[in-house]
Amino acid sequence: MTGDPAQIRAGVSVQGGARRDVHRALPEELPVAVTVNGSTHAVMMATPADLEDFALGFALTEGLVGAASEVERSELVAFDEGIEARLWLPEAQAEVIAARRRSMAGPVGCGLCGIESLEQAVRALPVLPDSGLRIPGAEVAGATDALRDHQPLHDRTHAVHAAGFLRPGEGIVMAREDVGRHNALDKLIGACARAGIDMGQGAVVLTSRVSVEMVQKTVLAGAPVLIAVSAPTAHALRLAEGAGLTLAAFARCGGFDIYAHGHRIVTEESDVA
Amino acid sequence: MTGDPAQIRAGVSVQGGARRDVHRALPEELPVAVTVNGSTHAVMMATPADLEDFALGFALTEGLVGAASEVERSELVAFDEGIEARLWLPEAQAEVIAARRRSMAGPVGCGLCGIESLEQAVRALPVLPDSGLRIPGAEVAGATDALRDHQPLHDRTHAVHAAGFLRPGEGIVMAREDVGRHNALDKLIGACARAGIDMGQGAVVLTSRVSVEMVQKTVLAGAPVLIAVSAPTAHALRLAEGAGLTLAAFARCGGFDIYAHGHRIVTEESDVA
Repeated sequence: MTGDPAQIRAGVSVQGGARRDVHRALPEELPVAVTVNGSTHAVMMATPADLEDFALGFALTEGLVGAASEVERSELVAFDEGIEARLWLPEAQAEVIAARRRSMAGPVGCGLCGIESLEQAVRALPVLPDSGLRIPGAEVAGATDALRDHQPLHDRTHAVHAAGFLRPGEGIVMAREDVGRHNALDKLIGACARAGIDMGQGAVVLTSRVSVEMVQKTVLAGAPVLIAVSAPTAHALRLAEGAGLTLAAFARCGGFDIYAHGHRIVTEESDVA
Repeated sequence: MTGDPAQIRAGVSVQGGARRDVHRALPEELPVAVTVNGSTHAVMMATPADLEDFALGFALTEGLVGAASEVERSELVAFDEGIEARLWLPEAQAEVIAARRRSMAGPVGCGLCGIESLEQAVRALPVLPDSGLRIPGAEVAGATDALRDHQPLHDRTHAVHAAGFLRPGEGIVMAREDVGRHNALDKLIGACARAGIDMGQGAVVLTSRVSVEMVQKTVLAGAPVLIAVSAPTAHALRLAEGAGLTLAAFARCGGFDIYAHGHRIVTEESDVA
């Protein structure tokens, strides 16, 4: 239904003037329209895999629904131009969303759906409670290596991002992939919601850097710890500090940096402030 | 005016249980609103550097203007929440853009400004003429290494993308950086337009993979060759094939792959079909 997430294509490999024919698996991306009760809410380019998870995760992180149970029905419909991920909500709720949508004046930019002024650009985030969750430093250090075992599309294409959910003592319990960082995280959030996994009990693990939207989505999903292989932006760090999110970055080669709320990461010496 | 594109922040580095304080330069990102004659057209997160180039490049690749000369005036204004990049166009032209904007119903997704259906999601692209431009394979193979010498913000932060313009025989003649791939390319296109560099006479070089939007922007800027360090998506390749764009990918370690319109790349053996 959602197509193959990779396509084998022919190319010519050039090395030092020598040429040879090659065939490589390239990641696919297609326009995906998320609709609510028949009206298009947003159209995004995404890898055509796990799109039910994507639609639900997007609905959760965009605030269209507060919980997976609010979605009465969902379906995927393939067209020549792309795929519609259709969500059906209670009529009253869909009308509120449609009214909010009509009040927005026009086009917006990447990662900032429906924003039309600087004031609206950075959403106020809830502050994560300290649930008592603690993660051993050794698990943080190994998190992105552990995620590598859950990236089958990356193994084929070497060109897609992944987002995983790590539960202390259990390793990566869920992972999703997409050419887009945000999509991979939305897919993960939707997949955890559908599987009944409480994201308050572990850490989001990313193959990418940490931009503002990645912090926003992680906090809105209720995950108290974010571990990334690359750097946070300065703005993303400010958001993490304000939202009480533990932020570990440069998690690779057996080490990592802690930038915010390190008390949830327990190292051998002691808690890291 | 546009702030520092990197911020020094303190962290704790953890390696094998040992902890030490570190200070790292993190890339900044801020909301940037592009306005046309006083009305907000789009708000995007971007690295606060070269924003005049960004606003012009965005206006060119989004079709707000057909040439840099159509912008009567531009200015950057900093607010607490972010930065406004203000463009002033002839009044009649601004009214057409505002009317087009009002006719769009609502929020849209990443990289698809103003799109509200699958049919609109992939823009028809012009077909690039064969201007006779040819690039030696050795220059393609060395393009991303050459770009590395033009990435001062990446040298500081190890976490931003770059887009460069390579002219055969001259190397990288322009480069721009941003946390966002699309923004780096828009900045490059704006910078070339402001410097009077004809992008028909060389190649765009990217530190990233090639998604649909990167092909769209490159073709709309008139550049006939795109060289990237990582993979194209299958959809991006289809667009490149249709638009007559030469697409070289995995350009690293002295080699590269050709996926579309290889006649513009001249290797020692012969032209690569």
